[in-house]
Amino acid sequence: MKYLPESIERLIEELRTLPGVGQKTAERLAFWLLKNPDQNRLNLGEAILKAKEGVGFCENCFHFADDQLCSICSDSNREKDVICVVEDQLDLIAIEKTGVYRGLFHVLGGLISPLDGIGPSKLKIAELEQRVVSRNFSEIIIALNPTLEGEATSVHIQQRLKMYPVKITRPARGLPVGGDLEYTDENTLKKAFESRIGF
Amino acid sequence: MKYLPESIERLIEELRTLPGVGQKTAERLAFWLLKNPDQNRLNLGEAILKAKEGVGFCENCFHFADDQLCSICSDSNREKDVICVVEDQLDLIAIEKTGVYRGLFHVLGGLISPLDGIGPSKLKIAELEQRVVSRNFSEIIIALNPTLEGEATSVHIQQRLKMYPVKITRPARGLPVGGDLEYTDENTLKKAFESRIGF
Repeated sequence: MKYLPESIERLIEELRTLPGVGQKTAERLAFWLLKNPDQNRLNLGEAILKAKEGVGFCENCFHFADDQLCSICSDSNREKDVICVVEDQLDLIAIEKTGVYRGLFHVLGGLISPLDGIGPSKLKIAELEQRVVSRNFSEIIIALNPTLEGEATSVHIQQRLKMYPVKITRPARGLPVGGDLEYTDENTLKKAFESRIGF
Repeated sequence: MKYLPESIERLIEELRTLPGVGQKTAERLAFWLLKNPDQNRLNLGEAILKAKEGVGFCENCFHFADDQLCSICSDSNREKDVICVVEDQLDLIAIEKTGVYRGLFHVLGGLISPLDGIGPSKLKIAELEQRVVSRNFSEIIIALNPTLEGEATSVHIQQRLKMYPVKITRPARGLPVGGDLEYTDENTLKKAFESRIGF
């Protein structure tokens, strides 16, 4: 039984393809879009259609870019001798927002995951090696998720780069700020104790 | 500092206008849309732009309709002498999905809420009264949310319709199926006891 006009059914179906959106949420979003002023809905539709207009990847670091180089690679105020290796652009933005890092990035485009058929050749690892070969960098920070895939990818990259005269580091593992020692998982607590620091 | 090309920033901003979507979720959705095949993104954009194409309101019950009458009002298999009054189309769909109801609907378009400036005249209550006057209905089921606004609106409608020879009912209040008596709020438990039923 069809309860709704074709175009609304289609809208709900398309919204359901979004991550974390089930049937109920898709219906709620669709009806919200229909209830609101048309202009809001049209703006959203346009923004989605035009999302990639003029957008490519930075030929240096593979971040999104409107030009050959992204806004970070083309910024003369950045430190040019450090590269921070990240899984994707979301991680890059998370790091940028902290304001703690002023160097360059390198976006891998994923993590090594044999079960999903993603080997090193599907990621921008060769391109990273090329960058390291072609210029003198003082440090490569491998900032991947502290998960199985992230660790495997970090080790793979570290192995490939260790023949070059560059320092390879990664962010510290430990208690998350504002976290609760009692509820911290065993592995994190272990790492935090092993890497304990002075005051 | 801008981390992203203009068109992606705009996409994130527009996604943030959706209900329940904050900055982080908007970023996640935007990057998901950019990562996926272009066709998926274009389909979603088109569906949003065209959501209202050819869609109006049923002149009878104010459900969405592609024609003068909605698919329910124009269905000859529905019982034509019962009207179920609902707040919006989402509630209508929820009731339709149970399959328990085979009559007609009447979509109010909201609930009476003086604080939000919504009085009876902003809802389709006069139109409901008109339907009741113009034809012989055997029953009007007022199926509004069991909230303050829902109760106030139900009572208002009941007062307005009680002069007509039609039975006015509403869904039973009681323990939700699969619920936990211990965690049921006081008012629901009270209603459930007051309206207790035989086996």
